[in-house]
Amino acid sequence: MIFAEILAVGNELLIGEVLDTNTNYLAKHLTAMGVMVLKATICRDDIDEISSILDNIIGRVTFPGPPDFIIITGGLGPTFDDLTLEGVAKATGKDLEENEEALKMIKEKYKLLGEKLTRHRQKMSMLPKDAIPLSNPVGVAPGVMLKPGRVTIICLPGVPAEMKAIFEESVSKLICDKDEVTSFIEAHINIIGVMESSLAPQIEALMEEFPDIWIKSHPMGLEGLRSFIRVHITGMGVPETLIKTIEEVQKELALRVEELGGECEIIPIKIDKTIRKTENNIKNKN
Amino acid sequence: MIFAEILAVGNELLIGEVLDTNTNYLAKHLTAMGVMVLKATICRDDIDEISSILDNIIGRVTFPGPPDFIIITGGLGPTFDDLTLEGVAKATGKDLEENEEALKMIKEKYKLLGEKLTRHRQKMSMLPKDAIPLSNPVGVAPGVMLKPGRVTIICLPGVPAEMKAIFEESVSKLICDKDEVTSFIEAHINIIGVMESSLAPQIEALMEEFPDIWIKSHPMGLEGLRSFIRVHITGMGVPETLIKTIEEVQKELALRVEELGGECEIIPIKIDKTIRKTENNIKNKN
Repeated sequence: MIFAEILAVGNELLIGEVLDTNTNYLAKHLTAMGVMVLKATICRDDIDEISSILDNIIGRVTFPGPPDFIIITGGLGPTFDDLTLEGVAKATGKDLEENEEALKMIKEKYKLLGEKLTRHRQKMSMLPKDAIPLSNPVGVAPGVMLKPGRVTIICLPGVPAEMKAIFEESVSKLICDKDEVTSFIEAHINIIGVMESSLAPQIEALMEEFPDIWIKSHPMGLEGLRSFIRVHITGMGVPETLIKTIEEVQKELALRVEELGGECEIIPIKIDKTIRKTENNIKNKN
Repeated sequence: MIFAEILAVGNELLIGEVLDTNTNYLAKHLTAMGVMVLKATICRDDIDEISSILDNIIGRVTFPGPPDFIIITGGLGPTFDDLTLEGVAKATGKDLEENEEALKMIKEKYKLLGEKLTRHRQKMSMLPKDAIPLSNPVGVAPGVMLKPGRVTIICLPGVPAEMKAIFEESVSKLICDKDEVTSFIEAHINIIGVMESSLAPQIEALMEEFPDIWIKSHPMGLEGLRSFIRVHITGMGVPETLIKTIEEVQKELALRVEELGGECEIIPIKIDKTIRKTENNIKNKN
């Protein structure tokens, strides 16, 4: 199993000016690739803050210890408050230095735009020592990858379109290259006429019976005058085995709901399109 | 100045099944009340994880040290994976015990619903010792407030409607009761025809000239064939002084944009409606 943590950098997220959708995108796509996301943090544009949070993630003491990947979004641009790489440099003890490859990427972008390379624009080529720039297909600031020890740090721009483009083109490939990637499989059941607190002991019993499966009830309010709950059943592992187990859990839960006087709609298992898309992307590029 | 950290608990947020909008709501409303949000975290439904993150926030080493408030969302319900209060109990060394007032609130809710009090439902009345339940006007699980030391911990349900209702009814009043609350004032300028990297040195200079003001450029893409940037100008402090300073910054920035060959639209300062709404809510209730 591969583990990851996410860090979103930006004051605008902590004053509520901007809703952080990048973390949700990354969580969804990493999970679909079989990566377990352990934690996500939003922090201010502040070198000490970024560095202190990274120290904490790299020295993670709770299960399973330090993650394989830290994916950071935001703070890579040309403005004074884009401080992510300074924070990474401080946490990893790698000085910022001009990265030739990054500078080349940035120069080419501004040439296309008919703009000069100013001091503020050149700032985006100052990467931590030994970092690798990741090409940005839709914006200027390159992504950055660094492996100062066991943990791989990946920095992506905060603009969602740029973040997604670099993730799809470079990051998903980096992660899929690891052998351990497993599959994430999910299924749903809609339940009408049983309250969440009545369902709780049944779900608890099923989770004990099937320890590899995660079952989560989401109360959706009322359907007419009856309680409506959407149950999400998920697991990570070898697809063939998982699918069989999840189908068994669906049937078993449906039986118990009927016993409680409720009604069920079993939604067929969805093989996440993202997995196939990512696999195909990689195949097409190789 | 009052400081806060936010913690959202829930596996569904870290697999990307649910987009965390609670943090954005809290960030926006706390900021509007003059509270600085230092950091926000999303963590899994895991006692050790919740407890370890709380330890870390309570022992915060970077500026300004431990926050005044930690606001937690999620994990208060009747299901086996609702573990927030166990995590809080572990971090604060306060055992969980049946809280009479909470039990009364829960009993009344189920009575209204014509439902029995089961073991799973009763679980919601097990609060850390010395905690105070906060009435939930739209759901069953009460909010929870605890002040084990310098830091006040407030736990709210993850269902957005319940979280908002308890925040508006109880939490905003708790925070506004503190003397130190200042105001958050914001203004915008729309800029056309100047690139973000050309604007960066001007904003940097203005931030040095006006150290209490935060200026942040947000590139919005192209307006026709010209770069379109929305600039957000914010500050916290005494409203009268702040408004004057921000108006000065707007004028000064507009001048500099004109010198760079761009065009400006100055958006008048918005006195956040939330501040007034919160003030009125409190007045109406007193």
